[in-house]
Amino acid sequence: MPLGSRTDCGDARYAGLRLPRVHDIAEDLQGALLCGFDFLVADIADPPVRRSPSTPPPFTRSDLLLSAAQWSGQVVGQTSAWIDADAATGSELRRDSEFCLRQELAWAAHLSLQACLLPCPRPEQVNTVRVLNQALLSSPGMALWLQVDVAAEGEERDAAWRAWNRARLACDHSGRLGAALALGRELPSDASLARWRGEPVKAVLLPTEAFVANKRGYPVLPKRHQAFLADMFQLGVQVILSGDGAAGGGAPRDAGEGGGAPVPHALRAHWEYVSYLFRKMEIAEPGQGIELAYRDYLQCPLQPLQDNLESQTYEVFERDSIKYVKYEEAVYRALCDRAPDSQTVLMVVGAGRGPLVAASLSAAQRAERAVRVYAVEKNPNAIVTLSHRVATEPMWQGKVTLVSADMRTWEAPENADILVSELLGSFGDNELSPECLDGAQRFLKEGGVSIPAAYTSYLQPITAHKLWTEVGAYKDLEHFETPFVVKLHRFHALSAPQSVFKFEHPTPQPADNTRSITLEFTSTEKFDAVCHGFGGYFEAQLYADVTLSTHPDTHTEGMASWFPIYFPIRHPFVLPAGAGLQVSVWRCQGNHKVWYEWAWVAGRQASPIHNPNGRSYAVGL
Amino acid sequence: MPLGSRTDCGDARYAGLRLPRVHDIAEDLQGALLCGFDFLVADIADPPVRRSPSTPPPFTRSDLLLSAAQWSGQVVGQTSAWIDADAATGSELRRDSEFCLRQELAWAAHLSLQACLLPCPRPEQVNTVRVLNQALLSSPGMALWLQVDVAAEGEERDAAWRAWNRARLACDHSGRLGAALALGRELPSDASLARWRGEPVKAVLLPTEAFVANKRGYPVLPKRHQAFLADMFQLGVQVILSGDGAAGGGAPRDAGEGGGAPVPHALRAHWEYVSYLFRKMEIAEPGQGIELAYRDYLQCPLQPLQDNLESQTYEVFERDSIKYVKYEEAVYRALCDRAPDSQTVLMVVGAGRGPLVAASLSAAQRAERAVRVYAVEKNPNAIVTLSHRVATEPMWQGKVTLVSADMRTWEAPENADILVSELLGSFGDNELSPECLDGAQRFLKEGGVSIPAAYTSYLQPITAHKLWTEVGAYKDLEHFETPFVVKLHRFHALSAPQSVFKFEHPTPQPADNTRSITLEFTSTEKFDAVCHGFGGYFEAQLYADVTLSTHPDTHTEGMASWFPIYFPIRHPFVLPAGAGLQVSVWRCQGNHKVWYEWAWVAGRQASPIHNPNGRSYAVGL
Repeated sequence: MPLGSRTDCGDARYAGLRLPRVHDIAEDLQGALLCGFDFLVADIADPPVRRSPSTPPPFTRSDLLLSAAQWSGQVVGQTSAWIDADAATGSELRRDSEFCLRQELAWAAHLSLQACLLPCPRPEQVNTVRVLNQALLSSPGMALWLQVDVAAEGEERDAAWRAWNRARLACDHSGRLGAALALGRELPSDASLARWRGEPVKAVLLPTEAFVANKRGYPVLPKRHQAFLADMFQLGVQVILSGDGAAGGGAPRDAGEGGGAPVPHALRAHWEYVSYLFRKMEIAEPGQGIELAYRDYLQCPLQPLQDNLESQTYEVFERDSIKYVKYEEAVYRALCDRAPDSQTVLMVVGAGRGPLVAASLSAAQRAERAVRVYAVEKNPNAIVTLSHRVATEPMWQGKVTLVSADMRTWEAPENADILVSELLGSFGDNELSPECLDGAQRFLKEGGVSIPAAYTSYLQPITAHKLWTEVGAYKDLEHFETPFVVKLHRFHALSAPQSVFKFEHPTPQPADNTRSITLEFTSTEKFDAVCHGFGGYFEAQLYADVTLSTHPDTHTEGMASWFPIYFPIRHPFVLPAGAGLQVSVWRCQGNHKVWYEWAWVAGRQASPIHNPNGRSYAVGL
Repeated sequence: MPLGSRTDCGDARYAGLRLPRVHDIAEDLQGALLCGFDFLVADIADPPVRRSPSTPPPFTRSDLLLSAAQWSGQVVGQTSAWIDADAATGSELRRDSEFCLRQELAWAAHLSLQACLLPCPRPEQVNTVRVLNQALLSSPGMALWLQVDVAAEGEERDAAWRAWNRARLACDHSGRLGAALALGRELPSDASLARWRGEPVKAVLLPTEAFVANKRGYPVLPKRHQAFLADMFQLGVQVILSGDGAAGGGAPRDAGEGGGAPVPHALRAHWEYVSYLFRKMEIAEPGQGIELAYRDYLQCPLQPLQDNLESQTYEVFERDSIKYVKYEEAVYRALCDRAPDSQTVLMVVGAGRGPLVAASLSAAQRAERAVRVYAVEKNPNAIVTLSHRVATEPMWQGKVTLVSADMRTWEAPENADILVSELLGSFGDNELSPECLDGAQRFLKEGGVSIPAAYTSYLQPITAHKLWTEVGAYKDLEHFETPFVVKLHRFHALSAPQSVFKFEHPTPQPADNTRSITLEFTSTEKFDAVCHGFGGYFEAQLYADVTLSTHPDTHTEGMASWFPIYFPIRHPFVLPAGAGLQVSVWRCQGNHKVWYEWAWVAGRQASPIHNPNGRSYAVGL
C-alpha cells in the first residue's frame, strides 16, 4: 500500500509509473510491478476522450480487471485531460466537463482508489475547484493530488503556488488535498522550492526529460534535482516517473528482457536510478528510527507538576546522555568556582530517578570538592528508585539525603549552595520551572547558584499544513488553542526565531512570572506563503557558558530530550513576501494555573486572541 | 431596563446621563431619573484615582447604596481614566493598571451592571484588549462599550474605526462588545458616519459642547447632528448626555427648581431637546410597528414545496395588497394584449387561498375578456378555503375549476394561455419557482404567457456585525452556510447590488436550472470596512413593464411580502477602501434538492467554498 496518507509516516520510499497511455491495465500494472515500480498512474476513463452525459456506457474499463486490493493499493487515477469545467458559462464543453469530472471521480471512489491526480486548477477555475471540493467531501477515502508545475519560470512560477494556494483555501485546507510537484529539466530557485517543505506534497512527478545521460549512457539526474529529491524523500514524498523512455538517456541495453511487459522496461534504467537514490539516502540517514515515528506527531505537553511521571517517561529522559553530560559540566564548573576546601550543599530538586544526582556526584569527584547532596522529589514512585540507588551505588552512599516532598513547600534543614533542576519544557518555562524554582529558592543561600541560571523561549512563524490540518481534524476550538510538543518535520520557517520570555534564577522575590510581548517579524520569504502558526524553542544557560538549546541555530548537538512546540492558530493566513507580522504572546497566571494567550496581526488581517482565560489549555500549579 | 442587549429591538428611545463626577450615586441617580433620564454613567471606582494591588479596600462605594434592579437597569459603569494596561512593560503603571482594570470590571459584573464604558484601546494597546476579552468571556452578562471618538478629523478619523476594528477582531467578534460613538461640535463626513450603520453602536455620547444656543438661548443641535442622531435612533442606539451644562446654551431659566438634585437640572434643557428629537422621529416613522419586530431577525427561508404552509402564513402573504395590485395589473395587460373575443384559459398554479384567482378574475372583468380559471394547489388545507370561495363568491362561480394536485405532475384537461404563479422567494429562485414552472410549462400553450415572465436575483457585500454575531451564536458550521431571510436593518452596503441568476418562463425544455457566476465587486467605500457576508434581493418581471422588486434601487413601493436574504460567511474580512472583491455563487442540483454554494476572494484572502454538496442547507424538491 504505497499510496495516500500512509506516505505521511516519513519512511516510505515508493516509486510510481505514469505511462503516456495505459492500454491493458492488468498487463501494464504487472509490467510496472515486475520492473520494480510500486504503483501505476492510469486514466480513470478508458479511452480518456471527449464525451457527454449522453455518451452510452461504459465510459471506462471494468472494475473486474483488477482485484480490489490492486485498485486501492497499486493504482492512482488520473482524470481526462480534455476536461475544463470552467469553459465558457453555458457552453457544451463546460457542461460535459462538469458531468464527466464528477463521473470519473465517483468511479475512482467506487474502485477505492486512494488518490487521483489532476491538473491544479488556475485561480480563475473556481468551478473546477468547487467540483473537487464536493468530491473530497463525498468520497472520504480518496485523496486528490493537484499537479503543480514547478518547472515554469519567472512570474509563472509563483502563479503555480498561488493556484495551489487558492485551491487549498477554497477546499478549506482539506487534509486529503495534496500537491504533486511536476519537475522539468530546469528547476526554479532554491527559495521557490523550499516553500514546498511546509506544504502537503504527496508526489514528485519526474518526466524522463528531466534526466540526462551519464558517460555510460545511463539516465541520471542533475545535482540540484538529486538534492531536491533527497529533501522530498525525507518528507515521505513518493516519486512518479513519466514518459516513454525515449528521452534522457533511456536504457542503453535491455536490462531485463523477456515476458509480456515490454513497456515498463523502457523505464527500467530510470527506475534503477531512483532506486539508487533511495538507497543512498537510507545510508546517509542511519539510526533515525526512533525519531521517525515522532515526526509531525502532535503531543500534549507534559504536566509533571500536576501529574506524576511514569517509569517509561523517566527512561526516555535518561536515555539522552548529552543532556546529563552538559549538566555534569555545569555542576563541575560551578564547584570549581568554589574554594577547594569548601563544603558544598547541593540540592537536586525534582530528582526523578536520579540522573542529575549521579551527574552531580560525578562532577564533584572530578572537581575534587566535598558535597552533601539532597535529592528532593515529589513523586513517591521515583523515591523507590532513589532509595535503591542510595542503598546500592557506592558513590551515593553517605552523600545523598532523600527527601520525599514538593520543593515548593518543603522546609529544608539547611540552605543550599547549588540548586540543580531539570524542569524545562519545550517552550522553556511551559512546565512551570519558574514557579517551582521560586518555591525552592527559599532554601538557596544568599549568593547561591541555580543550575539552570536562566532560560529564554523563542518563536517563529511557519508554514506547516500537515500539523494544522491534524489540529483541525479535531473539529473543535480547544485544539486550535493548545500548544503541542512536536518533532517539526514537514514545515518551512518564514522568519528567524525571536526571543519571547526570559527567566533568571535566583530572582528577587516575590517574583512576577507573568509576561507579555509583541514580536515584530518580517517575512524572509521571496514569495507569498501561508502561515499556519508558530514553532517554539528554548535556550537555557545552565552555568557560565554551558548551555542547552533547541533553537534551530544553536541546537545542542545530539540532544533529543526536547522537541519543539507548535502554537497553532485558528485561521491560517497568507503572509506576503517581505511583509510584517506582529505576534503578541502572554504568559498568564490564575489561581491554580498558568497559560499562554497569543494573537497575530498582519496588515489588515488580525486574529482573535487565542486561549483567553486559559479556556482551552492551561498548566496546573 | 434601558441598557445592553435590550436596545437591539430597535424601538427603544433611551437617554443616559454622564456627569463629570458622581458624588453621591443614590442622590445623583435620583436626580437624573427625576430630570427624565433613564440611566446614569458612573465611575466604577470611587474615587477613580490611581491605586495599586496593595491599596487597602474598599476601592469603591458599597453595593448596598442601590438596589440590584437599580444597578443593573439604571447604571452604566465607567473604568478609571488613569488606567493604561499598555504602559511600558515592567512598569508599575502597567502592573497597577492591569490589576485595577480587572478589579473594576469584576466589581461591575458583581453589581450585575449591563454595560461598562471604556476608552477604545488604540491598535497597539493589545494588552488592554486582552484583559477586555478575558472579561467578556468571564462575565457573560455584561457588555463592554468602547468609546470611539468620531469627532477627530483627517487621518485620525479612520484611526478611530481601525482601533475599534482591531479590538473587535481580537475579541473574536463578541456580541457583547459594542461601540459608543462620541460626537463633538464637528462631525466627520457622511461617508465616515455611514459605515457605523453596520457596526454594533450601542450609544452615542453627546457632550453639551456639541449643542448650540438657539435664538431663545435654549440648547439645540446642528442639522447634521440631528440627522445622524435620527439615523442612530432608528437603529435603537441610545444617547448619553455628558457635561456640566455650562456649554452649548444650558438652561436659561431653572426649569425645575427644588429638592436635593441640583446637578441633573443643569442638563434639563438638553434632555428636553433630545426628548423632542425622540418624539419628532416617532411622528416621522408611524406604522412601522409590525416590521420593527422583524428587523435583523433571522428566519430560515420557507420550503413551500416540501412543507405545506399554514393558514397564518397565507394570511400574512395576503395582507400585502400592493403585490396583488401588481398581479392584477399584469394579468389585465396580458388579457388586453389578446383579441377582444378570445376565450382565455388562465391557470393559477400554487393558488393558495385564492388571492391570485381573485386578482385574475378582477383583471378579466376590467379587461372585458372571457376567462376560464383553473386553480391548482397541492396543499389540501388550502383547497378547503378555495372550495368555500368557489361556492360563495359570485365572481368565482362558474369560472373557477379547483385542482388538488402538484403542478409538476398534474395532467391538465386542456392547455393554458396564461400561467399565473407566485412562487418567488427572497432570492428569486430560492423557493424553486424554476423547477415548479418547468413542470407546469407542460400544459402551457405554445406562445402562452407566464406571469411572472422572468426574475433575477441580486447580491451585494455588506457590513452587518449584528447579523453575523447572531449566526455565530449558534456555534456551528451549519448556520454559517445557511442563507437567512431577514429584514436587513443594522447594515451598511459596501458596493451596489449586482445581478446573479436570471430565469425566464416559458423556457426551452429540458431546462438546466443550475447556474454559476463570479461577480466582481469594487468597494465603493472611502474607508476600510469589514464584510460580514452578502445581502440578496430580486427583481421579477410579471408582464411587460409590470414588475415586483426588492432591489434597494427599484423596490416596489409599499410591498412587504419579501425581506432580503442574507448569505453569511464563515470569516468576516477587512475589505480595503476601493478594493476588489470576487464573489462566486452556484445554484446546484442533486437528486432531491437544490442548494447554493458561495465563496469570496479579496486580494490574498480567500474563503472556503460554503455549503459544499448542500451539506448545511438545501431546498427539497
